[in-house]
Amino acid sequence: MTDQEACRLLAEMTRELYDNRLVTAKGGNLSVRCTSRENACWITPSGNFKGGLSPDDMVLVDLDGNKLDGPYKPSVEAGYHAGLMRMRPEVSAVVHTHAPFATVFGMSDMEMKPITTEAILIMNYPNIPFHLGGTADLHSFVLKHVGGGTAKGAYLRNHGLITTGKSLREAVDYTYMVEHTCRILVIAKMAGIEPSLIPQETVERIGQYVAMI
Amino acid sequence: MTDQEACRLLAEMTRELYDNRLVTAKGGNLSVRCTSRENACWITPSGNFKGGLSPDDMVLVDLDGNKLDGPYKPSVEAGYHAGLMRMRPEVSAVVHTHAPFATVFGMSDMEMKPITTEAILIMNYPNIPFHLGGTADLHSFVLKHVGGGTAKGAYLRNHGLITTGKSLREAVDYTYMVEHTCRILVIAKMAGIEPSLIPQETVERIGQYVAMI
Amino acid sequence: MTDQEACRLLAEMTRELYDNRLVTAKGGNLSVRCTSRENACWITPSGNFKGGLSPDDMVLVDLDGNKLDGPYKPSVEAGYHAGLMRMRPEVSAVVHTHAPFATVFGMSDMEMKPITTEAILIMNYPNIPFHLGGTADLHSFVLKHVGGGTAKGAYLRNHGLITTGKSLREAVDYTYMVEHTCRILVIAKMAGIEPSLIPQETVERIGQYVAMI
Amino acid sequence: MTDQEACRLLAEMTRELYDNRLVTAKGGNLSVRCTSRENACWITPSGNFKGGLSPDDMVLVDLDGNKLDGPYKPSVEAGYHAGLMRMRPEVSAVVHTHAPFATVFGMSDMEMKPITTEAILIMNYPNIPFHLGGTADLHSFVLKHVGGGTAKGAYLRNHGLITTGKSLREAVDYTYMVEHTCRILVIAKMAGIEPSLIPQETVERIGQYVAMI
Repeated sequence: MTDQEACRLLAEMTRELYDNRLVTAKGGNLSVRCTSRENACWITPSGNFKGGLSPDDMVLVDLDGNKLDGPYKPSVEAGYHAGLMRMRPEVSAVVHTHAPFATVFGMSDMEMKPITTEAILIMNYPNIPFHLGGTADLHSFVLKHVGGGTAKGAYLRNHGLITTGKSLREAVDYTYMVEHTCRILVIAKMAGIEPSLIPQETVERIGQYVAMI
Repeated sequence: MTDQEACRLLAEMTRELYDNRLVTAKGGNLSVRCTSRENACWITPSGNFKGGLSPDDMVLVDLDGNKLDGPYKPSVEAGYHAGLMRMRPEVSAVVHTHAPFATVFGMSDMEMKPITTEAILIMNYPNIPFHLGGTADLHSFVLKHVGGGTAKGAYLRNHGLITTGKSLREAVDYTYMVEHTCRILVIAKMAGIEPSLIPQETVERIGQYVAMI
Repeated sequence: MTDQEACRLLAEMTRELYDNRLVTAKGGNLSVRCTSRENACWITPSGNFKGGLSPDDMVLVDLDGNKLDGPYKPSVEAGYHAGLMRMRPEVSAVVHTHAPFATVFGMSDMEMKPITTEAILIMNYPNIPFHLGGTADLHSFVLKHVGGGTAKGAYLRNHGLITTGKSLREAVDYTYMVEHTCRILVIAKMAGIEPSLIPQETVERIGQYVAMI
Repeated sequence: MTDQEACRLLAEMTRELYDNRLVTAKGGNLSVRCTSRENACWITPSGNFKGGLSPDDMVLVDLDGNKLDGPYKPSVEAGYHAGLMRMRPEVSAVVHTHAPFATVFGMSDMEMKPITTEAILIMNYPNIPFHLGGTADLHSFVLKHVGGGTAKGAYLRNHGLITTGKSLREAVDYTYMVEHTCRILVIAKMAGIEPSLIPQETVERIGQYVAMI
């Protein structure tokens, strides 16, 4: 993937998530690993309106989150975007959104349950305690709980959602999948439905499969 | 319908269901009977991102689900797609989605009730016990409960929805209709509303009419 | 408005309502008064897929609902569409949809309350008892309760919604307005919120104003 | 910004809010400060269908709400739009919508709570008692509670929402943000979830920051 393609994809995906009300005007940031240069990634800029980013707005940062190139300041969350790529070589993209059902889920004490195969894929996401966006505290908590673990994403309490992927498309797909699954769980709770669960044996079988991929 | 038209329709309908969040990035599959060749059907490929399939991605399988042609592996659910067309000559298309309200419905003990004429059309859908997607167990349960019966679709517990149709358009329309109706029932339950029902006499009259078509 | 414009508008509005999931694949019908010919109206055809109607598909009927022209059978609800225009000269368009929140509302015993100015405009809609779609019973009940009254629309129990307007745009706008207002009321009920109400004095003042227009 | 750009933006934003069902057919109005002329603003017209406004439909009013130019009558709410710009020099745009979750929130006794950073930005919005739209009573209450205060917006009880901004884009973004946040709070209430809150210390820190901007 050329830098041009990476930046175009970042702009397109941010716009798609904005149109679906998962990214808000100023809330949400996306990054993708740079392939033309080692130890760097492209990330959305800080503060700009997220419904109208162009490929030229993207910012290149090293894997400590320091700006290398680009017309704006990088997202205030560059620290954990870059850090996740530094700590986990298989991660090539990070997506942070304000997905509403994932946000509701993350401000409750609900637990993800094996209600579908997709739910099993995200059952190990931690719910990271609140720290103000853009702070070193938030970054170190995300890196500790996601960077140092095996979960492919995390809830940010009173804030939103992080997902990662081997590609930007995959990280975005996981965002939709988490939102879809949290919505199903919250709808069931609203309706007073105790959802049936996938048998524990199958959950473990899928869990082992997931650990491999 | 030429093969070209069949594949174009499959791509269009998959995209439409994806855009409406009934098919997810990797969840959902559609098939339509092949008319240029006996005992075969076109089906969406396995694993590919469902939001961007092209007509050229489709796979031809025989009615036992074995691949005949195409650039990818067929959907892991080809077994029941093909089997339903083998067992029920009037079925020309099968649609499997992760429609959220149908999924909630299918993981509860709610029963479809005659709340509208549309609800009556889908009152005999079975709720098929959970078996892992892509397994012979799931296929044989679907074929037993839908292939061998008169229901035009089924809930898959902890998984999603299957609908069939005399055309791909009809099978997709039934998917929307089931989702629409489950949503109404679940909303009523959320609001503590006990919905009024269509009188039993009318239900039976419509049921007889449905059995004929 | 020429016949051509009337038919184009019918096709456009049906498609818009379909895209917004208020009209379903086969559920919903729209009509608009013909101006090139007295005592006639254009109506959507019966049975055709509602997501892809073209202007050429529309059917001309007299105000008793008898077909005058067009390539298909008129909607099975032509009887009350035409009848409403016959009985109420100020009505130039009728819209019947399966709007989900209006449908939930119509199958409950909830009453429309003066929660907003818009709600006051629709507080006199009757909730018409269930009769099978397309039957003379349904038509006569609609004509009795809406044709012979002052309400600009009605809930159809276990079925959906009817709105009317001085133009097709206005009838469609009322459909959205009813759905919007029912949604707010049902959401409040779901959340256990007893909504505050507009003072009775203001309700009466607006009611008098509405009666005049 | 030229007058032409201001009017084009007003048309575009009204349409966007209409398509997102926050502005209804006749409900909602937007304004933006005129820069070619002192003490004046452009505002959407009264009564016109809000789903299809063109830039040429906009009306110029002075900061007392009197019409200066344009083909239609100004919105009946021109009084508080203009008044807010007169009283608060930092306000360059005002947006009034019928956003459904904000409307539900405004007809309840719920309080905005520090559930996210975005929620903190809107915690000081007053809930203005009901007065009929377009009346001097409503205008004076809005000007007293928002014009004379520091809140950047307000709930209108049994009516809808007002937001303001340093630009039209910002005022629209706040509308989405309020709706997004009210939706999260109402969903939590529906599901019986008591949301965790951001610690009071952080709330105060952010509050001080907000007061500065």
